[in-house]
Amino acid sequence: MVKLKIPEHQVAGHQAKNGILGPLIDDSGKFYKPLQDDERGSNELAFYTSLYSDPRIPTNILKFFPSFHGTQTVDASDGSGLHPHLVLEDIVSNYTNPAVVDIKIGSRTWHPQSSEDYIRKCLQKDRESSSIKLGFRISGLRSVGPTNQLWQPHKKFLMDLSVDDVMLVLRKFVSSDGNVDEPDCVFGSRVFVPILEELLELKKWFEVQTIFHFYSCSVLVVYEKDEKEDEKKSASAVVKLVDFAHVVDAKGAIDHNFLGGLCSLIKFVKDVLTGLSDVQTSNPKA
Amino acid sequence: MVKLKIPEHQVAGHQAKNGILGPLIDDSGKFYKPLQDDERGSNELAFYTSLYSDPRIPTNILKFFPSFHGTQTVDASDGSGLHPHLVLEDIVSNYTNPAVVDIKIGSRTWHPQSSEDYIRKCLQKDRESSSIKLGFRISGLRSVGPTNQLWQPHKKFLMDLSVDDVMLVLRKFVSSDGNVDEPDCVFGSRVFVPILEELLELKKWFEVQTIFHFYSCSVLVVYEKDEKEDEKKSASAVVKLVDFAHVVDAKGAIDHNFLGGLCSLIKFVKDVLTGLSDVQTSNPKA
Repeated sequence: MVKLKIPEHQVAGHQAKNGILGPLIDDSGKFYKPLQDDERGSNELAFYTSLYSDPRIPTNILKFFPSFHGTQTVDASDGSGLHPHLVLEDIVSNYTNPAVVDIKIGSRTWHPQSSEDYIRKCLQKDRESSSIKLGFRISGLRSVGPTNQLWQPHKKFLMDLSVDDVMLVLRKFVSSDGNVDEPDCVFGSRVFVPILEELLELKKWFEVQTIFHFYSCSVLVVYEKDEKEDEKKSASAVVKLVDFAHVVDAKGAIDHNFLGGLCSLIKFVKDVLTGLSDVQTSNPKA
Repeated sequence: MVKLKIPEHQVAGHQAKNGILGPLIDDSGKFYKPLQDDERGSNELAFYTSLYSDPRIPTNILKFFPSFHGTQTVDASDGSGLHPHLVLEDIVSNYTNPAVVDIKIGSRTWHPQSSEDYIRKCLQKDRESSSIKLGFRISGLRSVGPTNQLWQPHKKFLMDLSVDDVMLVLRKFVSSDGNVDEPDCVFGSRVFVPILEELLELKKWFEVQTIFHFYSCSVLVVYEKDEKEDEKKSASAVVKLVDFAHVVDAKGAIDHNFLGGLCSLIKFVKDVLTGLSDVQTSNPKA
């Protein structure tokens, strides 16, 4: 049987520890996500199963999704014994020192068919977080600086950021050390130029796709902070979509909720990049 | 004192009649909208006042707003005596036989600072209508056919349209007569080619503007159905934004709610146009 361990770089969602059911990884680059035993589990499994066989999904769009290797029953992280897991791509497995941010897209995390109770809970969270204001909220973030300092802001802090806060967090995310007040943004253009390109490619698809509505789905941005590793293609900055427990049939309409939030995120990334070139212009020797 | 009358082509909002306060028009192309005596009135007045003096609004964007001529106290339509009115451009005054559709944009019509009571009411309407599903709802529509038949679907019918219903309504909107089951779409490309261009121009602005969030605001589409008049520039198909009682400060974020709905509408307009060229391709003699 494969030896599984707790992932080190997970930033959002249930985290495995003693007594808690969470995802596991193996040494071959696979991510084992416990299948939730309600509608969410069957929904996410159905999504992954249909995604890779649906001829309507353009090939260039499939790269935004973690690859899928079926389900497997393995020992659960909570010590409760065997439990079915989705076997997915471990997105960070090729990275030596990955910086990761999880951004839940959309100002609304519930869909019209949800139960009243679920809608009430989601709506409250959407109102208390930045979701309704900005069209997204940062669910988690993790980055390790040059002398091994971990920067992992508390989830409660990340939930309800203002526009200025998001700008600062994104600037710190592409800095050598996120813990300092004045971010150096050394990875700024190396990360956000390719990431912006990917987000724009995704946006183009969301302007026309009428297959899925992605509720409560996240954009994961990952890049390599280890300068020696950074040149490798396998460790380049990527955008991935994750968490499909609340994907529903689009019934012929575009996913305006996801698209609006994605456009908002794109505006922030553009503004961070503009800020970098402003600095370069005003300090030509910098 | 100017002689005011009840507008003939109004499709949404309070309609003036005996005992009911509604907008009035004069013969010089002005539209008198009663100033609501609560926050909504002062908000809409503040919006119009700031709009035309705000240097951040690009000149090409100002054309999407009705021109504004201050306020004037005139006899109210409900017979209650003098009442302050916003004096706006009467958008349809240059048209002989205008076809008009009012589309309320955004899946959410309430903003975060609204009262709990207002949020509850709006949310219910957003859920009962097509707003949450499609990102917009059609608030009203009016079109008069070649032998003077009026086509003005009931508001309750328009509120909650499916994707197929919206396609059919938009196709009927650009047909000589909306009352027939098989729309001829004779005005299809003459209307939707320029309208699409305008909507895309608006979209481009909404992707970057962080000045206003437009809640419960409508896109009004107007075109000339009188073939003799249609060639005049003053009677060409236009897009206008109307209803600014619920516009709030964007606080630095784009209006992802409006933008998402606008992109959804754009997709519908594109699909109607594609449908037209498909027909032309399959019936080259048609």
